[in-house]
Amino acid sequence: MPEPVRIAIIGHAFMGAAHAHAWRTAPRFFDLPRQPEATLLVGRDEARTQAAADRLGIPEIATDWRSAVTRPDIDVVDICTPGDTHAAIAEAALAAGKHVLCEKPLANSVAEAESMAAAAAQAAQRGVRTFCGFSYRRTPALALARRFVEEGRLGEIRHVRAQYLQDWLSDADAPLTWRLDKETAGSGALGDIGAHSVDAAQWVSGQHIEGVSALMHTFVTSRPVSGSSQGLGGAGDLSGERGPVTVDDAAAFTARFSGGAVGVFEATRFALGRRNANRLEINGSKGSVAFDFERMNQLEYFDGGDPQEAQGFRTIHVTDAVHPYTDHWWPVGHGLGYGDLFVHQVADVLTALDTEEPARPDFQEALDVQRVLHAVEASAADASRYTPVAR
Amino acid sequence: MPEPVRIAIIGHAFMGAAHAHAWRTAPRFFDLPRQPEATLLVGRDEARTQAAADRLGIPEIATDWRSAVTRPDIDVVDICTPGDTHAAIAEAALAAGKHVLCEKPLANSVAEAESMAAAAAQAAQRGVRTFCGFSYRRTPALALARRFVEEGRLGEIRHVRAQYLQDWLSDADAPLTWRLDKETAGSGALGDIGAHSVDAAQWVSGQHIEGVSALMHTFVTSRPVSGSSQGLGGAGDLSGERGPVTVDDAAAFTARFSGGAVGVFEATRFALGRRNANRLEINGSKGSVAFDFERMNQLEYFDGGDPQEAQGFRTIHVTDAVHPYTDHWWPVGHGLGYGDLFVHQVADVLTALDTEEPARPDFQEALDVQRVLHAVEASAADASRYTPVAR
Amino acid sequence: MPEPVRIAIIGHAFMGAAHAHAWRTAPRFFDLPRQPEATLLVGRDEARTQAAADRLGIPEIATDWRSAVTRPDIDVVDICTPGDTHAAIAEAALAAGKHVLCEKPLANSVAEAESMAAAAAQAAQRGVRTFCGFSYRRTPALALARRFVEEGRLGEIRHVRAQYLQDWLSDADAPLTWRLDKETAGSGALGDIGAHSVDAAQWVSGQHIEGVSALMHTFVTSRPVSGSSQGLGGAGDLSGERGPVTVDDAAAFTARFSGGAVGVFEATRFALGRRNANRLEINGSKGSVAFDFERMNQLEYFDGGDPQEAQGFRTIHVTDAVHPYTDHWWPVGHGLGYGDLFVHQVADVLTALDTEEPARPDFQEALDVQRVLHAVEASAADASRYTPVAR
Amino acid sequence: MPEPVRIAIIGHAFMGAAHAHAWRTAPRFFDLPRQPEATLLVGRDEARTQAAADRLGIPEIATDWRSAVTRPDIDVVDICTPGDTHAAIAEAALAAGKHVLCEKPLANSVAEAESMAAAAAQAAQRGVRTFCGFSYRRTPALALARRFVEEGRLGEIRHVRAQYLQDWLSDADAPLTWRLDKETAGSGALGDIGAHSVDAAQWVSGQHIEGVSALMHTFVTSRPVSGSSQGLGGAGDLSGERGPVTVDDAAAFTARFSGGAVGVFEATRFALGRRNANRLEINGSKGSVAFDFERMNQLEYFDGGDPQEAQGFRTIHVTDAVHPYTDHWWPVGHGLGYGDLFVHQVADVLTALDTEEPARPDFQEALDVQRVLHAVEASAADASRYTPVAR
Repeated sequence: MPEPVRIAIIGHAFMGAAHAHAWRTAPRFFDLPRQPEATLLVGRDEARTQAAADRLGIPEIATDWRSAVTRPDIDVVDICTPGDTHAAIAEAALAAGKHVLCEKPLANSVAEAESMAAAAAQAAQRGVRTFCGFSYRRTPALALARRFVEEGRLGEIRHVRAQYLQDWLSDADAPLTWRLDKETAGSGALGDIGAHSVDAAQWVSGQHIEGVSALMHTFVTSRPVSGSSQGLGGAGDLSGERGPVTVDDAAAFTARFSGGAVGVFEATRFALGRRNANRLEINGSKGSVAFDFERMNQLEYFDGGDPQEAQGFRTIHVTDAVHPYTDHWWPVGHGLGYGDLFVHQVADVLTALDTEEPARPDFQEALDVQRVLHAVEASAADASRYTPVAR
Repeated sequence: MPEPVRIAIIGHAFMGAAHAHAWRTAPRFFDLPRQPEATLLVGRDEARTQAAADRLGIPEIATDWRSAVTRPDIDVVDICTPGDTHAAIAEAALAAGKHVLCEKPLANSVAEAESMAAAAAQAAQRGVRTFCGFSYRRTPALALARRFVEEGRLGEIRHVRAQYLQDWLSDADAPLTWRLDKETAGSGALGDIGAHSVDAAQWVSGQHIEGVSALMHTFVTSRPVSGSSQGLGGAGDLSGERGPVTVDDAAAFTARFSGGAVGVFEATRFALGRRNANRLEINGSKGSVAFDFERMNQLEYFDGGDPQEAQGFRTIHVTDAVHPYTDHWWPVGHGLGYGDLFVHQVADVLTALDTEEPARPDFQEALDVQRVLHAVEASAADASRYTPVAR
Repeated sequence: MPEPVRIAIIGHAFMGAAHAHAWRTAPRFFDLPRQPEATLLVGRDEARTQAAADRLGIPEIATDWRSAVTRPDIDVVDICTPGDTHAAIAEAALAAGKHVLCEKPLANSVAEAESMAAAAAQAAQRGVRTFCGFSYRRTPALALARRFVEEGRLGEIRHVRAQYLQDWLSDADAPLTWRLDKETAGSGALGDIGAHSVDAAQWVSGQHIEGVSALMHTFVTSRPVSGSSQGLGGAGDLSGERGPVTVDDAAAFTARFSGGAVGVFEATRFALGRRNANRLEINGSKGSVAFDFERMNQLEYFDGGDPQEAQGFRTIHVTDAVHPYTDHWWPVGHGLGYGDLFVHQVADVLTALDTEEPARPDFQEALDVQRVLHAVEASAADASRYTPVAR
Repeated sequence: MPEPVRIAIIGHAFMGAAHAHAWRTAPRFFDLPRQPEATLLVGRDEARTQAAADRLGIPEIATDWRSAVTRPDIDVVDICTPGDTHAAIAEAALAAGKHVLCEKPLANSVAEAESMAAAAAQAAQRGVRTFCGFSYRRTPALALARRFVEEGRLGEIRHVRAQYLQDWLSDADAPLTWRLDKETAGSGALGDIGAHSVDAAQWVSGQHIEGVSALMHTFVTSRPVSGSSQGLGGAGDLSGERGPVTVDDAAAFTARFSGGAVGVFEATRFALGRRNANRLEINGSKGSVAFDFERMNQLEYFDGGDPQEAQGFRTIHVTDAVHPYTDHWWPVGHGLGYGDLFVHQVADVLTALDTEEPARPDFQEALDVQRVLHAVEASAADASRYTPVAR
């Protein structure tokens, strides 16, 4: 029986819970070289961290991430905190020889991301691996789309069309949170959800974005400050005080891809009625694929080689044993959910750790996404002028 | 810290795995009175049972269910075996004072189901609870449909329209399995998937089926016998031997409901292209709901009270904090999967064990489904004549 | 320049208007052997008939259909009146040597329909043609489904699933009209819309319905009598008087087809929210088709021969030049509407008149539908017992 | 009986046929102040024009548009020719005091469009009306969307998302036609289909586009020259000769609207599998609407005021008597087709001619669309820099 892989999870909000679920569940459905054990949960507040650990079934907690990431009994550091803390934690962990799985976006700036990628490259020479949590790649339908492109089913790619539409900020009185603060979050819709679109578009199409022309906008420039975030008890709520939103509410851009495709991207949290419409459509000379996460178990596929009278987008129920990931789960037609993507992610991570399998996406690939986001911001700040992605 | 609830799972195929996943996961997302521990896995073949236990993370195994269900350290017996074994296991477990969660259909005959329900009634007097695994009730969208009916949003119910369409038997050379054998499975499409429709239709509508007029059919009457099921090595495959299919491939029936509604039901495993289309539509005098498991996170809802120019079926993304079950999981729009239904099921079971909450559906309610299935078979055998459900 | 074909239209309500539109429009889009001219409109009330003729652009009117159908200048009698008048008008017209296009259902009873079919057979010997207005056959998507079955794309047919769902009677206070009176209409949902399903199911599948087991129901047994229908001025409305509904509100039946397929049918005008959901799905051993008139320009098609990873229902936009009828209209993707079906119908009629092309469906084929409807009523009256279709 | 309105149609290709159908059909379904008569068809080639007139049922033809548009018996000149001829014909007709209905785009350049709008303004002082054929405005579902915005149902508008996706140029060997020639067509996807999106977006949202940042691209830069277009018999096809494509295959742009909304537009004829996906989505602070012409009888509508548990996009079947245009046609649920939009258009034109009703869109409004298209081309030529629309 090989030694287990021991994981320290840094952060215990939404993402921490999703990751803990994944480490626990993966070995029950996937054949893994070694068994994972999420043994340590790290958070700033001791009481809240302990409560989270109890709920998530993690045996030990710590409040100082610096000492946690160097502990000899830890093999993998799993970073689930806001973007402004990624670089410091990841670099410390890499320096200590730990493999790192870091949530996206990799960092809040290209400079930080470059530093992290450099650290990753150095660590790689000692066999240390890095991963960035673009979890949507683990959606069976998107992985199938990627496979179709690789197989040449789409031919020459002409169009990439990506929308990530949410609506949870539609209400102008929704409270100010860290995701609306540039210091902590880096950017708004762009980095939070647009980053997923950029990664998926490049990965599925197999092409790099060469340049962009962008527009960013903030519809609601101030929002109610909740008391608790100020340490003022409930007073904040009563006072009607509002604080500034310092990130974009929406970002849209056109793009040119390395292989000649033309892209259109849009990310917003103001598309009232769209709960989590993470959509990607790619049109090639021979075929097309279209995906919407609101129907995550389906891929639309158009085969231009079908007889003309029988052509049409096929709704593939991506739950068959021949599809990516799905042979590990239920009978055909019994779909998966959002939480299962994280199970796939850690299964891929654990497999990569003990094989020659490349770790995708690693910090280098995540840095590339960061560079695209940076070009988007630069173009938006320069009257939407076409801005090449600096690589 | 209260004592945990200890569970013995009987059977380790598809359903056993789903249940094991659920017991492990429920306490991580739901606040439960006591923690569950799946401590014992029971199967006939020691080696295969041990392999399953290792994969599912269950510490102990047994090969004799009779002794297993009486063990003093077991609180709940979770039956995941084919229908012909349900009665014996459940009754032994109830006699030993164990709570029982039994997969559907409750039994292969009304007589067995009645015996089980009687045993359950007796055990109930000693505080022992029974549950039947109609897991689709745990789909948030169907639970929301039920809530809408209860709230009176649909008015007087006129139509119930239920289809359960699969296609895995479309190929006439798909092998003979236990699900095609009347002795083991009781019936074919009717009991396997039609039972889900009957339960969901009665539960969501709040009405009982009073009588049915049915047609059952077997399209492919013999199928290849696989060698392994004969203990003949690979020889069976080579011989081209075929064995008889003794159950229905498809069942269809019309129905009358206690509240005056008219029902149309269809269950088949020959609807080529329909992977797991478990559909239910209910039309009332004020509103309608429609559901298809192939888009399990959505409920279609028509509100007849909307202004005439703005009427239409709404596609509700049933992933909001105000919806059934979903507040325990992810942000709005990030849907659930099939496996999560079982998590809801055991959360409901665990809650019922320690509260006055009724256990739904219990054996009595599951017996009622069995009686409807029996009337369907009786009508089909009597030239489709309208046959009241004997209660 | 050949002589035109002169048409007398009997009836000027909804159907009369649709037919007049068709006769006027067909020669503008289809190459026809001879040009049609709708020259005579016949109705009981002179003033209302004249107003309709003015609106529809028909030069002449008449109030006595008996003399109208024998006029030497009339070639085709087009019957758009309620079912209780079909037999008399059609037989008189056939006796006078006129071709007849008669709205569906052919008649209100099998006896009448048999008499009409006999008259048609006799007239056929003199070169006189008959047609029945099952206009949905002219939907390009359904005609494509028929073509796919003929080409063998579906293989052996197992399932026929037909629903015709409307909701205009959902309101229990909707007024009593002739469509709710058995004398005039023959039956309710069954003959009005179920007849379309029966015709489409038999035509597309290429199989006959051999027997049925049926249930019929009237949800609202009395409705407000409107003053005008009583000749009492507005008094009826004020009195709150209600008259009896003497037809079915809903009909549902299972069926066995000549080729071994199993059918499930449902027709209702109480499916709240379903405006005109005329649906047909057929599953075969090699493929499936599914259609819903609410998206009339699309056909869903599943090809079981597609590679397993790329299987799924295709949404064919049936607007391509290679599809039935559509090469006569707009560029691909620019769909047709309900009114255009009638244009196709008269184009087919006019083509049949001057060619050896069979007239489909003729009175004989329409009689067959009538016999199925009769078996449905007989089964419903006999405790849903399976009732063979008498042919 | 008032004098009829006499129309000369210039051009007899696809658009001429659609218009002729409309003039003939409108008086049969709409109550109009005066009856239209399409009395004259104008084309360059006498034989082909005569053949078209025969097919379309137009009594007279002419080959010289200059004399045709000044004929005293003509009231309306209906221009259905390519864009490079619009200005000359329209200005001559206006000078002769004829009302003008001109196909879109109004002209091939802003200069021409300005000249036409100036001529229209002058003619308007003499009671002469102008109209531009943005026929999609006549889609009941889009007109309903417009009504919803006007009624305030959407609140403050944040997002406008317009895609017009076709695929008929996907094949790199599709032949060179006038639509691919800048001289004749003005632009490619932008003016042909993007113009519809711009008009619909501004009209439905009630906001003007203030500026754009654009990208245009030609995927296939040369195409086979067909013999007939060269006057060389079939030789062209055999020679393999290719000519240059001088227009855009695809255009994409972001936009800022006068009321603060952010827009994303895309027009292409290379989206393989999308036949005529003319889509528009608008998200406001209170509601959203979404439309796709491939399901032209439906409007998706999200009402943010619905109770939270029952929120979702409603699929409104826009075929009810309370919806725009539809009360003139069939019963609810029996949808319309593409050709019917032109019927609505001429009904609106004929109504405007004899009432105070404004003519929408007139040449002034169409000029505005032209200015937006011009800004798109200017931005695309200037590295996508944000370019205000010059008004």
